[in-house]
Parts: sequence; C-alpha cells; structure tokens
Amino acid sequence: MKKSALQKARATYQPKLPIVLTAPVKVVEGHATESVADQDAIRQLFPNTYGLPEIHFEKNPSPAPGKPLNVGVILSGGQAPGGHNVISGIFDGIKKIHRDSRLFGFLMGPSGLVEHKYIELTAPIIDEYRNTGGFDIIGSGRTKLEKKEQFDKGLEILRELGITALVIIGGDDSNTNAAILAEYYKANNAGVQVIGCPKTIDGDLKNAQIETSFGFDTATKVYSEVIGNIQRDCNSAKKYWHFIKLMGRSASHIALECALQTQPNICLISEEIEQKNMSLDQIVKYIADIVTSRAADGNNFGTILIPEGLIEFIPEYKKLIRELNELLGANKDKVAQMNNEQLTEFILGNLDASNVAALKKLPESVAKQLMLDRDPHGNVQVSLIETEKLLSGLVADYLANDEAFAAAHGKFSPLHHFFGYEGRCADPSNFDADYCYSLGFNAAALINAGVTGYMSAVRNLVKPAVQWIPGGIPITMMMNIERRNAEDKPVIQKALVRLDGAPFRNFANHRDTWAHNTCYIYPGPIQYFGPAEVCDQPSMTLKYEHQHK
Amino acid sequence: MKKSALQKARATYQPKLPIVLTAPVKVVEGHATESVADQDAIRQLFPNTYGLPEIHFEKNPSPAPGKPLNVGVILSGGQAPGGHNVISGIFDGIKKIHRDSRLFGFLMGPSGLVEHKYIELTAPIIDEYRNTGGFDIIGSGRTKLEKKEQFDKGLEILRELGITALVIIGGDDSNTNAAILAEYYKANNAGVQVIGCPKTIDGDLKNAQIETSFGFDTATKVYSEVIGNIQRDCNSAKKYWHFIKLMGRSASHIALECALQTQPNICLISEEIEQKNMSLDQIVKYIADIVTSRAADGNNFGTILIPEGLIEFIPEYKKLIRELNELLGANKDKVAQMNNEQLTEFILGNLDASNVAALKKLPESVAKQLMLDRDPHGNVQVSLIETEKLLSGLVADYLANDEAFAAAHGKFSPLHHFFGYEGRCADPSNFDADYCYSLGFNAAALINAGVTGYMSAVRNLVKPAVQWIPGGIPITMMMNIERRNAEDKPVIQKALVRLDGAPFRNFANHRDTWAHNTCYIYPGPIQYFGPAEVCDQPSMTLKYEHQHK
Repeated sequence: MKKSALQKARATYQPKLPIVLTAPVKVVEGHATESVADQDAIRQLFPNTYGLPEIHFEKNPSPAPGKPLNVGVILSGGQAPGGHNVISGIFDGIKKIHRDSRLFGFLMGPSGLVEHKYIELTAPIIDEYRNTGGFDIIGSGRTKLEKKEQFDKGLEILRELGITALVIIGGDDSNTNAAILAEYYKANNAGVQVIGCPKTIDGDLKNAQIETSFGFDTATKVYSEVIGNIQRDCNSAKKYWHFIKLMGRSASHIALECALQTQPNICLISEEIEQKNMSLDQIVKYIADIVTSRAADGNNFGTILIPEGLIEFIPEYKKLIRELNELLGANKDKVAQMNNEQLTEFILGNLDASNVAALKKLPESVAKQLMLDRDPHGNVQVSLIETEKLLSGLVADYLANDEAFAAAHGKFSPLHHFFGYEGRCADPSNFDADYCYSLGFNAAALINAGVTGYMSAVRNLVKPAVQWIPGGIPITMMMNIERRNAEDKPVIQKALVRLDGAPFRNFANHRDTWAHNTCYIYPGPIQYFGPAEVCDQPSMTLKYEHQHK
Repeated sequence: MKKSALQKARATYQPKLPIVLTAPVKVVEGHATESVADQDAIRQLFPNTYGLPEIHFEKNPSPAPGKPLNVGVILSGGQAPGGHNVISGIFDGIKKIHRDSRLFGFLMGPSGLVEHKYIELTAPIIDEYRNTGGFDIIGSGRTKLEKKEQFDKGLEILRELGITALVIIGGDDSNTNAAILAEYYKANNAGVQVIGCPKTIDGDLKNAQIETSFGFDTATKVYSEVIGNIQRDCNSAKKYWHFIKLMGRSASHIALECALQTQPNICLISEEIEQKNMSLDQIVKYIADIVTSRAADGNNFGTILIPEGLIEFIPEYKKLIRELNELLGANKDKVAQMNNEQLTEFILGNLDASNVAALKKLPESVAKQLMLDRDPHGNVQVSLIETEKLLSGLVADYLANDEAFAAAHGKFSPLHHFFGYEGRCADPSNFDADYCYSLGFNAAALINAGVTGYMSAVRNLVKPAVQWIPGGIPITMMMNIERRNAEDKPVIQKALVRLDGAPFRNFANHRDTWAHNTCYIYPGPIQYFGPAEVCDQPSMTLKYEHQHK
C-alpha cells in the first residue's frame, strides 16, 4: 500500500489518554440510574440491564493480575473519522490487560457477526490503521441487529472464537440495538458482554452523559475548511451567492458548528424553522431580504449554509412527506404496478388539498423527486432532494419581482455545493484521534470490569486530554419510548439542536451582523503538528456547551 | 476582523527566499531571445520589447544606493492561492531597496487602473494578508486591458501617483496584455515599466522558461485532500462510484496532478481523448468496462476524475460546439428575438446532420444547456455542463444492457462532486507561500533593474527554496500568433497536458493497476508546521517534469 507523506508521519502519532487510563484502574460505582423517560416501560423491556449505576474509573494501586480477553468489534452505520482509533484503543487496552488478549473484527458491519465473517486484528494490521480516517479496516454496514435469530446466530461464532465481549461502534440506533443485545445475552446467560461506542458525524448522539459523538469534530473541521475557502473566494470575486448544503441527517448540529467556525452570511437551522412554524415562502423571503440588503450595500455576494434535513422540518413539507409516506405505504402493491404518470395522477388525486398545494409550489423536478424517488421501505428520500438548488431557484424567482432588489441594481448569481462524503473519512483531528483512542481503551477497561449494556463514556472533553474522565453509562439510561414505523420502541433519544442551548444562542446573537457585514472566518485545513491552540481544540459546540466547566 | 487560530499562527510565517535575493543583486543578461513561433510577426508587433535577453540575478558585492520606487499592482482573473504573498513580496522587496518606496493596489482587477480606483498598500494592510489565500486585499476582475484608450486612461493615474512600474498578476491572457501594455508605454516613452507574474491554478501557464504558475500546488493539494477523503469513504462503504469533476478550464493538468496524488480508479485526460479521437460512446464504454471488471471482483465502487473542459476535447462535441458558436454568432440579432422553442427549432434545422446526431445522443437537459445557455459573447458555457452527471447517466444506460455486468451481478450507484471554488482561495501551501513571495520580491528586483515587458521567473523549484534561481523572461519570448474570435492575435502559448511528458506517462503506466485494484492514496490536508517531507513538497507534476535536475 503506497502512502502519502502525511499518512506516514501520522502513523507515528501517539494519541493522548486520560491520565487515569495510563495505569491499572478500579471501578467506582455511582447511584442506580433511571431512563430519561418512560421508566416503567424501559425497565420492563430490560429487566437484566435496567437501573445499573453510572461508573467511572480510578487508579488501582493494587490491581489483580489481568486475564486474557477475547473481544469482538463491529463498525455500524455511516463512516466517522476516528473509528480506526477506537479499534486501536481497544486493541492496546486489552493487550495491556493481558498480552494474550485477542481482538476479532466482524466484516462489513453487523452482518459480519450474523454471517460469521471476521478477521483477527493483529498488531501489524492495527499498526497500518492508527490515526487514519475511514472504516476500511473491517468495513461497515447498515444491517440492523434486532432479531433473536440474529443474536443466536451471532452467539455461535462468538462461542467458537471464545469471544466474551463485543464492542459495537455506532450511532443512536446501533447503540439501542447494542442494549437490546446486551439484555438478550444477559437474560440467556450467554457469557458475552456488550459495550457501545458513540459514533456519528451528525452530532445527534449526545445527552447529559455523553458530551459528543466521535467524528463530529473532524467532519465539521473539514467542512469548515472548504466553506472558509469558498468564503474567501466569495469575498475576492464578490459576484456569487454560494448555497452550501451540509450532511447531518435530521439535526442541524453540523450546519450550526460550521456557522460558528466560519461566520457565513446565512445559516438555516431546521429546528428553529420548525419551532417558528416557518413556511417555505417565509424562508425564501428571509434569504431574499438579506440578499437585497447586501445588494443595497453593493455586495452581490454571500454564503448560506443549509442543513441536509431542512425540508422535513418545514411544517408544510413535513406534513406532505408524512401523508405521502402513509399513502404510498398503504397502497404498496397497487403503487408497484404503476408507471410514473399513473403514480403522479394517483398521488395528486389522493393527497389532501393543502398538500397538493405545497407540492405545486415546488419546481417540477423537486416535486417529481418527492413523488417518485423512494427508498426500499417506500419512504421519500429526503437526502437526495437538492435543497440548495430548490432554495436558490425560489430566491431567484422572488428577487425577479422584488422592487427593492431592482432599486438596489442587485445581481443574483448562485452557485451550489454539497459537502458530506468529503468529511466522513478524513484523517481524525488530534481531538478525535485522542477521543477515539480513549473511548476504545476505556471500552477495554469496561470489559475488564465485567459490565454489559454500557456505553463507553469519556467526559470533561473541553479540558486537555489528560484531565478527561473515563467511565461507562448504562445505555438504558439514555432511552425512552418512541413511535417508529407504527410501533412503540425503546430508543436512545436523538439530540436535535436546542434553541435554548449556548451554541444556538451564540449564533442567534451574531447572525444579523454576519448577514449584513462580511465577517467570514477562514479556519483552514486541520493541522496535526503545530501549536496546541491550532491543533488541539475541540469543536465550538462543545466549548459553548461546557464553557462553565 | 475575527480570525481563526490558524490564521493567527500562519500570519507569523516568514516565507523562504532564494538565497540570491536575500542581499542586493545585479543583473546578468543572457543572449537575445526569439519568440517561440511566428518570430517575424511578433517582432513587428513588439518593436520595442522583442528580442530582449533572459536575465537572472547574482549577488552584488558593491551595490549602488537604492532609490524610492512607486509601484502599482493588479490582480487579474480568477483567484489563485498565494496572490497576497506576491503582493507582500513586492512590498518587502521595494521597501528593502528604499524605505520610502510605495505600493499602490488597483481595485477589482484591471478596471481599477482604467477607472482610477486604488488604495495605497501600507505595512498594516500588508501584514493582515501575509500567507493568506484569496485576492480580497484589493480584489480581482476580468476586464481585459487591450485598448489604447485604457492604456492612456491608466497612464493618467500612474502619473498622478508617480508610479513608474506596474506589476500585473495574471494568467496567460493577462500576461499577454501586460506585454502589449509594456510595448505601448515603451513606444510612447511613458516611463512606466510593466512586469507580469504567472498566476493560475489551472497550471496551463508554463513553458521552457516558467516551471509552473502559482496556485496550482495549493489548489491541487486541496482537491487531492477531499478526493482522498472520498476515496477512503468509497473504500469503507464499498457501494458507490464517485464521479468527481475538477476545475481547470481546457487543460487537464489539475485532474492529472490529483490522479498522481490519489491514484483513483479512473482519470480522464482531455488531451488524450482528443488525440485518440475518442467518441463519447467510446469514453462511456471505457468507464463501463472498468466498472464491470471491478464488479466481477465484487467491487461495486470506485472513483473517477473528470477534467472540467472534457466535452470540448471530444472531437464530435468540439465540432458541434464550434458550429453552434458560429451559427449563433452569425445570426445574433435574429436569435435574440427567439424564445427557447424557436431557438431549438432554428438550431436543429440549421446544424449539420452529424452535429444534430451528436446533440441527440445527449440527455435532454445537457442538450438544452448546450443550445440555450450562452455567455454574453454568445458562446456555449462549457463550464456549466454537468459532465459528471452526463457521464454517469450514460454509463448507467450502458450497463443496463451489458451482459457481462449482469453476469457479475454488478450494482452501479453513482454520486457526483465538483471541486473548484474549494481550492482557488485556500491558504497557500508552504510551496506556494514561498514561491509567491519570491515571485513578488523578484519582481521588485526586476523593477529596480529598470526592465519592462518581463515576466517574473523563479526556477529550479524542485530544489529547496534557498536554491531557487530568480530572474526575468521577456514575455514576447513565450508568444506565438493564434486565431482568436476570427482575428490573428499575439498570445502566450497555453500549455496543455503533453502526452509525451513524464507526468502523463507515469499516470499512463499505472492506470490499469489503479483501475482494477484499489490503490488509493490519502494525501490528507495541507500541513504547515510538520516535517519538511510533509510540508514542503512541490507538486508531483513539477517533480516528474524536473526529476533529472
């Protein structure tokens, strides 16, 4: 494998660990816990793993000799920078406990467990992947581990390999499934512990116990680098409006973090739009008014950040998408026989009049996308909708009839960008490299402590890494009951942007200034070797959320 | 102006200079020069500036005391990383010659000279912009300086400010115009020297005298960073084909350099496609065959780099675009009255049958774009054509009927990217920061030497900066006569990718391996503070072209 100069130099980086984890540890148990809501229901569903105490680690001056641990690891869902470091952290952690410990990686996600596809992760393999981006060491996948047959099938290979602990690295759904698996194995005395690790660039897996998911830091720094570069171009050429859509699923954490880092002229926050019950027309007017105001100052340029999930948060389209999904779901067989023309007719004939009106407000191409492009479950593929082009087109239409814009002799030339795949597999920032390695090393300590149904938790992240606090959180503690696909299910609460939170408030306090002036910040590329104030900073979101620590 | 941590840290970077420029210099003249072709014609057009000698600088042990210099500077055309460092190099260079020297920046490109819009660039302003990307210090623009009235109007403000030398930072066309301006001022004894600086991310301003244009290094490193990240994602998820279009105008230097840095599965080189007279069908088959071959190995993923100018190099479309431009140019007034429907009818009724056939092979949206979207000169807007989507669509059509692909149980899910604005204003790499500063500092030395019609030239660039060789090249030496807009014009030869050059040959020697295996390299982000092998490397193109030095 030919490597770049940076790959080679970066391979030698030794991630920083919390000081506590640099020597043998003992478990300190907190109080018994309760789930964040729906306590009775969650307790019933998790009789063996509910109510466990939070734990943290302290130095152990008189540790018992360690025993070899056989551990399995799974990467689940979308890539996030630092996954390889979680794995190298687990590897080093269990090797430190006993040199005969072994680590097995299940291939291409949870399906590897069920289908018995795996490799042993030995030191030479691990060393190839230290501090690198990507999930290519064992691959990832989106198979959901949720059925007893899968659990039983998995147990066969775990027994065969003598694996007594499984680490599942994933987002909220994968960690929910980790908890279900932990409960099942515990209930059946399978002798396999299950530990989760909080992964997702989207930043929506966080709560009172988990300060941030890994990968968010690096991904937002990559996006902010290219947004900053575009802003510098924008401010040099002074003739384009850049509409920049950012990955991040439903939540707007990524857009908000990038806005805090780069100070664009506009950033839409889906959660706010929903809360204010804004219509698409109002959003378009909000943007157009800023374009016009800048044009009046002679500034026919600007930048606007758009969260991927926006359309689902605009109440009129949320309603439309819900009815579309229900209508097509209820008529699956009938719909499967239709050509596009028949389907369009069927949809327009059966939707509520208000939803037909919402549909007709959209450009034809977007309306078609909503009606005709569906995922295998029959749902609208929101992430495929080119919201950035939809908005710029509607803004252009609005401005064409706007007297103030004409009076300002305004010009409006939009350009479009979508960033997502550029950041999910970037080499982890020092923060993510350290955080991930610590999460993995800490997972080894949790395994050694014999617990199950816990998420690896490393806290106090705005402080230098040595001061980070390692421990474990019972996954059931983060759960509530939500309605998913017409069923009540226990799930980890997804964290959306809180409008009363410090990151949003900080943004909201400044956005008018950023809109009308040009206050761009240019973060530049992630640096690995320079001064700490350049290389070792956590995200702005994390800083604002924990600034009083 | 709020700044990022990197902006602050980077402001203190002292760019490296060729050792020769660190002390007073004297001019060493080479032989008289000839233009690269059409010598008689060029000599006639440039009677006062033709045939000048190449010059380089040597240390001057007994320099005469310097006199204050009043210098003007213009940024012309598209942004390129390092422009600010050219300006700070000029500033420091003329201040070193005499502390009372002054630098004036004309605003928003060449029009600033004609319209007398300028600012004085003082030390506090210069210090704000050292080692930063963008052209925002004075802005840039695309006004062409080519008319006597412009030259005369410009001379008024130059005289008013006591400016005796003008530095024009631009691409091939801007440097051509710099030569014309130099000749005009010389012929009229205006007392104003004109010096050019080779700028363009596209890499097409290079020749036997100029090793590379500035900005190419940084821009290709930024594109390679994100391409590498996408490749890591691609190799982790193993389910998408990423079609990545790259800026770069006509030439494929950017795509080729990025291919050398990242080793994608496919990279199209426009110049090769033209030389081999490949049809669009053949290109589609070439891609589809690699997709199928990888599918047969179970690899339903890959990356493909596409140069922006591709379509103009496919002979059948080159012909179509030429006839379209001629047809619409010859019927300007008539066409201006037509609606889209009438225009389409007019075009289809008047084009040659082979061109109508070529048009009909395209998806409707692309055909429409070719027929209806025109720039203010009535030309087809090639850069707006979404070649990446055009190709993936045609490949999908091809694969749908391909037996081998079906037999391999192949899947083809394309994703699309276009990178351009992400790199044009990035913070310059150490290479570009040093090169640009040296180009500017060297321009000051050329001014002090009293020459005009020269391009600032810094050579030996594959060696460490201290060993670089500063000097000046008569711009007329790079010129020939070309037909532009139905007129014979003296222009600097544009450098396309040479199929017999080392960079292309190296690529061609490896591409089959890269296509069928997965040999991705992940360059990662530009580093400024680490080891020299990570931070101070020139482009692969430059290394291959000058590897025997």
